Amino acid sequence: PAGPRKAAPVENKLPCSLEELYNGSTRKMKISRNIVDASGKSMSVEEILTIEVKPGWKKGTKITFPEKGNQQPNVVPADLVFVIDEKPHNVYKRDGNDLVVTQKISLVEALTGGMVNLTTLDGRNLSIPITDIVNPGTEKVVPNEGMPIGKEHGRKGNLRVKFDIKFPTRLTAEQKAGLKRLLGG
Amino acid sequence: PAGPRKAAPVENKLPCSLEELYNGSTRKMKISRNIVDASGKSMSVEEILTIEVKPGWKKGTKITFPEKGNQQPNVVPADLVFVIDEKPHNVYKRDGNDLVVTQKISLVEALTGGMVNLTTLDGRNLSIPITDIVNPGTEKVVPNEGMPIGKEHGRKGNLRVKFDIKFPTRLTAEQKAGLKRLLGG
Repeated sequence: PAGPRKAAPVENKLPCSLEELYNGSTRKMKISRNIVDASGKSMSVEEILTIEVKPGWKKGTKITFPEKGNQQPNVVPADLVFVIDEKPHNVYKRDGNDLVVTQKISLVEALTGGMVNLTTLDGRNLSIPITDIVNPGTEKVVPNEGMPIGKEHGRKGNLRVKFDIKFPTRLTAEQKAGLKRLLGG
Repeated sequence: PAGPRKAAPVENKLPCSLEELYNGSTRKMKISRNIVDASGKSMSVEEILTIEVKPGWKKGTKITFPEKGNQQPNVVPADLVFVIDEKPHNVYKRDGNDLVVTQKISLVEALTGGMVNLTTLDGRNLSIPITDIVNPGTEKVVPNEGMPIGKEHGRKGNLRVKFDIKFPTRLTAEQKAGLKRLLGG
């Protein structure tokens, strides 16, 4: 005969910052569940579950705590499942193992060179020199500054820098004449 | 009792150029079909079907010729259906009632002004002056130079001009210094 039926798994989202998914993090989740004691009496207990978020984990990664759902008579308690979700970051976007950043630069910097200064997800200052002319489609790839690649120790994806080139909003007749002279209109 | 069953419709694509869909066009299609004569003998005949493509017709428009499929005993011949398809154009892209064109211009033109010269789908020369500074996101909208809007006589969508700004590929130290001086790096 079949054993007692098991309750359907209970899924919860676990929103993580990009910093947590880059560096890894230990998350402690307080849960409250009903248990049934030997006499059949039901009571609520609190429990702390620990999740070790590993560097490089992706949105959709599932962590399962078997049978940590509510206890009920004659039913195997549900598995409790946490699903990693990625909080939006205000500088970086993740694209698989890559990180993508859109950097504003002035037209003059795009044409004459400059420096892109970023803070990495582990808090380092990263200075990327711009030496070649940047045009609207330019993507500068910095190897090994993307997200950690799970299981491969030390390996990381790329950082891809896109550019939002800020054009002047107005130019004087003298500036226009100068540009034509310089760039050969 | 139900009548004789009818054969399933036969669909054919009718690829049209953007010029045909803009101006309208008369398309003559030679078809070959089997007919069954009074004695029950089957023979192949050729027939010319005429389709008046109306200005503004869109991809997916269907024109049905009832019962122009092959004749077979005890079956109502299939409807013959032509489905308008849009051939790619090498200058314009259609977006609903709008036409979209991506125009290459030099950085100097983008900054100091210029003229975009286009040939419309009905063969006119269209000159669009560029007076404001064009930046990589600029879209210049020319009203009433898009596709005809079906049924509304004379009304047309917009022409939207996007820009692919060609940056210089190299600059001398003198040009760079001049740009910094002019644009205030």
